[in-house]
Amino acid sequence: MTIVPDVHHANVLVVGASQGIGLEFVQQLLQADSVTTVYATYRTAASAVRLLELGDRYPGQLHCLELDITNETQIANCATYLQTQAGQLHLIMNCVGLLHDGTLQPEKSIRQIDPDQLIRYFQINSIGAALLAKHLLPLLRHGDRSIFATLSAKLGSIGDNQLGGWYGYRASKAALNMLMRTVAIEFERKSPKTIVVTLHPGTTDTRLSQPFQMNVPPEKLFSVERTVTQLLAVMADLKDGDSGQFFSWNGDRLPW
Amino acid sequence: MTIVPDVHHANVLVVGASQGIGLEFVQQLLQADSVTTVYATYRTAASAVRLLELGDRYPGQLHCLELDITNETQIANCATYLQTQAGQLHLIMNCVGLLHDGTLQPEKSIRQIDPDQLIRYFQINSIGAALLAKHLLPLLRHGDRSIFATLSAKLGSIGDNQLGGWYGYRASKAALNMLMRTVAIEFERKSPKTIVVTLHPGTTDTRLSQPFQMNVPPEKLFSVERTVTQLLAVMADLKDGDSGQFFSWNGDRLPW
Repeated sequence: MTIVPDVHHANVLVVGASQGIGLEFVQQLLQADSVTTVYATYRTAASAVRLLELGDRYPGQLHCLELDITNETQIANCATYLQTQAGQLHLIMNCVGLLHDGTLQPEKSIRQIDPDQLIRYFQINSIGAALLAKHLLPLLRHGDRSIFATLSAKLGSIGDNQLGGWYGYRASKAALNMLMRTVAIEFERKSPKTIVVTLHPGTTDTRLSQPFQMNVPPEKLFSVERTVTQLLAVMADLKDGDSGQFFSWNGDRLPW
Repeated sequence: MTIVPDVHHANVLVVGASQGIGLEFVQQLLQADSVTTVYATYRTAASAVRLLELGDRYPGQLHCLELDITNETQIANCATYLQTQAGQLHLIMNCVGLLHDGTLQPEKSIRQIDPDQLIRYFQINSIGAALLAKHLLPLLRHGDRSIFATLSAKLGSIGDNQLGGWYGYRASKAALNMLMRTVAIEFERKSPKTIVVTLHPGTTDTRLSQPFQMNVPPEKLFSVERTVTQLLAVMADLKDGDSGQFFSWNGDRLPW
């Protein structure tokens, strides 16, 4: 099995690889026979200790780059660097996502809606992925198959929304799904061998889900190892007509 | 037929009433027997000449208020004013929407994506409606039926997106649809007689669609009169289970 269908010497880029699912993608991709080089980005060195240690352990095979997804200049510089170093990419896996941090918490009620917080969700969860698509398209356009994948969330499914709450997170993931579907339509003309997808990882035992795990039954809380294995299997199975779709960890298509 | 089902003395608020569909809503609502008072907002007096003239013509029946939907303080002040003046509202019709202006144009290609432009789309087309819901909920919660409606667009349907392009507009309307569905779920608990919907008006002959009308067959380009008559008919027909849905001008439910 190849990581990207039919590609035996893949260059891959993991965006948001400091921790959690992103870091685990790096670890599993480093072990894959069909992967030649892994590029991995982190926002700040302070939060990327384990990734940077891995970089030291796999010199030549893993390259770590500083990248804040809200900074377009950094994304453009990263694209230039990758153009020179890698020439082409076969998989871009964007794992950047914000649900909560020191100051920002998902809204339980409409009364907690704050415009600046909403904008922050859109910047990190929606706009960042579009900027990656804008600057990295030339690296995906070559003779081989390539995949541009972004972590989304079933919470971003409008049709599946039954519980309410979490306004900013939900809206930013719905916007992400729309942006990526629109990217897929444009790439179909400009880079027909690139498949663009959004992926629901399932609830995974990471810092993102940590404050909300108490209501998750144990069998529905995945380890990062399991989540990444499952998502790699979904991607290995992607076919031409799958571009522009939203897939769950088990390969099912999710409703918008 | 009543404007809001079963409400014979309605107070209505039209947000974004300077021009186009919003202004026409004001005109038709002023003629409706079941409407007592119309409140109408405009962003700047300079662009609201016709609305302000109407205000002079219908003193006591039409009240015009200055409101920038990106300014939460103004929305809160507007809510306080309406609480004092009207006490309760039976219909809030939000017609604010941005597709283009002097500097901002819908993106034909991913290369034209600009983070600041995307944020502006989200502020005006998505976040504004959520702020209205946040501050105006107490006015909708009373013994009678009430409706909180927002203009959305079929271009904001992720599932219906076949053509691509127009990244910011599409993503901001998808985010709007998610925010309004989430509002509907919360209102179902807090104000069960309020129906929350997003509405697709069809392509209407306004300033918004003007630069893009050349590809629209004449029978599919509605006059503002026709659009507003059609949307009022859709709203007059709303039932309990319709809250949280996305309706087209002909009453059909649209896919997310």
